[in-house]
Amino acid sequence: MKKKIIQVFSNIKPIPGICINTANIGIKSKTKEDVTLISFDELANVATVLTKSKTYAPNIKWLKKIKNNGKAKILFVNSGNANAYTGKKGYRNVLKIVDKLSEIFKCSKENVLISSTGVIGEHLPIKKIIDSLPLIYSKKNKKNQNWLSFAKAITTTDTFPKAAYKQTTIRNNKYSIIGICKGSGMIAPNMATMLAFLFTDANLSSLQLKKMLKSSLQKSFNNITVDGDTSTNDMVSFFSLNKRKSKLVKSFSMHELKKFQKDLDKVSIELAKKIIIDGEGARKLIEIEVKGAKSNKQAKNVAFSIANSLLVKTAIAGEDANWGRIIMAIGKSSSTINQNVISIKIGNNHVIKNGEIFKNYNEKIVTKHLRKNEVCICVDLQIGNGASKVWTCDLTKKYIEINADYRS
Amino acid sequence: MKKKIIQVFSNIKPIPGICINTANIGIKSKTKEDVTLISFDELANVATVLTKSKTYAPNIKWLKKIKNNGKAKILFVNSGNANAYTGKKGYRNVLKIVDKLSEIFKCSKENVLISSTGVIGEHLPIKKIIDSLPLIYSKKNKKNQNWLSFAKAITTTDTFPKAAYKQTTIRNNKYSIIGICKGSGMIAPNMATMLAFLFTDANLSSLQLKKMLKSSLQKSFNNITVDGDTSTNDMVSFFSLNKRKSKLVKSFSMHELKKFQKDLDKVSIELAKKIIIDGEGARKLIEIEVKGAKSNKQAKNVAFSIANSLLVKTAIAGEDANWGRIIMAIGKSSSTINQNVISIKIGNNHVIKNGEIFKNYNEKIVTKHLRKNEVCICVDLQIGNGASKVWTCDLTKKYIEINADYRS
Repeated sequence: MKKKIIQVFSNIKPIPGICINTANIGIKSKTKEDVTLISFDELANVATVLTKSKTYAPNIKWLKKIKNNGKAKILFVNSGNANAYTGKKGYRNVLKIVDKLSEIFKCSKENVLISSTGVIGEHLPIKKIIDSLPLIYSKKNKKNQNWLSFAKAITTTDTFPKAAYKQTTIRNNKYSIIGICKGSGMIAPNMATMLAFLFTDANLSSLQLKKMLKSSLQKSFNNITVDGDTSTNDMVSFFSLNKRKSKLVKSFSMHELKKFQKDLDKVSIELAKKIIIDGEGARKLIEIEVKGAKSNKQAKNVAFSIANSLLVKTAIAGEDANWGRIIMAIGKSSSTINQNVISIKIGNNHVIKNGEIFKNYNEKIVTKHLRKNEVCICVDLQIGNGASKVWTCDLTKKYIEINADYRS
Repeated sequence: MKKKIIQVFSNIKPIPGICINTANIGIKSKTKEDVTLISFDELANVATVLTKSKTYAPNIKWLKKIKNNGKAKILFVNSGNANAYTGKKGYRNVLKIVDKLSEIFKCSKENVLISSTGVIGEHLPIKKIIDSLPLIYSKKNKKNQNWLSFAKAITTTDTFPKAAYKQTTIRNNKYSIIGICKGSGMIAPNMATMLAFLFTDANLSSLQLKKMLKSSLQKSFNNITVDGDTSTNDMVSFFSLNKRKSKLVKSFSMHELKKFQKDLDKVSIELAKKIIIDGEGARKLIEIEVKGAKSNKQAKNVAFSIANSLLVKTAIAGEDANWGRIIMAIGKSSSTINQNVISIKIGNNHVIKNGEIFKNYNEKIVTKHLRKNEVCICVDLQIGNGASKVWTCDLTKKYIEINADYRS
């Protein structure tokens, strides 16, 4: 497993014009790197999607303020402290970091993106951070594009660094899509946050980035749930670097954009699944596909009702073919369905067909599928063409242990 | 504890005209009573509220069909088998029971109420049930009003029988309100169901019963959550017995109805809390009060967002004053709130005041409160006058154990 994870990082082809610097300044621990400074030689195009939480953190307030700017010079990320629910002082601290970075990099404040993750309700060690920035800048090295260091520096309770990489070829030009993320459920004392950063050397406008990112989110990060909780600091940014643009295609056709979107989706889905695999106490990745719904929205609604059901999640932890819980979860979703036509498959095995227990239903075969690391549940509502796929993990004693028994 | 529970039953004053018979016919186990037949000497007025699940069981289908009838001669309840997701045959079995009972009691079919709870997806042992009915009827004894037997016979995974009782005095007449319920979370293999039955000798029309029951549910059974899951068989019925009506007040004034409503609410809330106390693996009853909301609906929405948060429930299981999780749960509720004015109390202790950590916040005192069996969280949103109170329990390893590790 570990070997495979490192493999991804060594596959990544650097994107010219991105400089990554990471450092330890003692926010998270005395030894682990907890600050990342990514700078772009030229202004990058960027689109960002932010948490819908109403108790969002001050850095999110800053990003809300500048989000339509669409250009980035700097991305600053700290882990170990979410700077959430820290009031006016928390926001002043964000502005201090923005001011300092715009001064160092001689850029507009609107081109500085700030991201934080970690414990809620504590103030950032602002002096330490401000003092460290010139030092980190002085280490600036154009050859320094260590994606693994970046992935590690943004982790909190993650058990492994997370990346996904894809090359896509358009008109004989190869383009990279690099994705880095963190997240493993929402845990205390670090109210862990889902952060994801995507980078490409394809020449895309910030409007195109926004459109593609939103579309991708609907198939990836918005389709996962560890425990149904939503963080104060969640964000996903997508950057396009213009460094090589002279050599490359200036603008893509609709068809080419679609091809690119597909590869972007693959990167996003791979990252999203890695968050689930790293879910607290998780032993199984559960894929829930709902089709035959009246709309994609209804399909997603039903899929999440199953994915967030504690009874379904514990049954799968127990490798128990308790399909009654799936029926219950479908029933409690506030969707108009017809229970007499539902079909349910676990793995490739029919459990329910057209509203009745499948006549050849074999619990032993279903239990065998449930023993796997990846479990698939497919529900066909048979009332329309809407479909959705979501991912979750099983709910184990280890989750309770992590969240109730210890506080570090 | 046990002593106190039995105490409630011995306080109950019988309501004339109700005959309770319970029996073991081997649905749940070889020894435990699993069938209850309650018959009313004269037709009782009745109102019933049913589960909102879209995968409701056949008995619910029957009740939906007759619910506007408002009169009951018989209430039949079986435990150990929910007769849910059993298709057309499941419904035919319900009709067989209805037919037999209407024949025995010489009443209209529309006056027969059927309630089931237990495992999903299995057919009722219909022959056994039908054969047993005349036998149970022959045991009919007017003096037989054993509420404890009834409460025990409807349990599945409950660890204790549940009742609440109140006497209310109106114009010098004493009226009884008897409540019996079952439920302890939604567990497998018995997808346990929340069933509640309320009885009074106050002369109320079925329309009045309906109005009062709906109002009471909004403050009790609709305000509790063990794991956020909803059953296929949930139901609450409220019966008014007319036996003594000649001696009693024929109709109540608005003021008297209000007084009665208050006592009914007390009975309902006591029952609802007992379900939570018996929540799977629960060690603590958590009361969540949200006030200062724009509306009661918003208050309830925020309260449930906290009550259903796995992170809040595990933090309380760990007696951890992790208020960041409460903030997170408020933030994820899809309500328009102003995070800068929120106040939060745990027990009587301010944690957050007007959007900032309370200056005299003392984690030790809060932790002391969290060590109690009953934990109170009070959130003041300070944007209006809406309020709501909901109850839940902590989430412990025992819950996972019950739901994942064993299948009986």
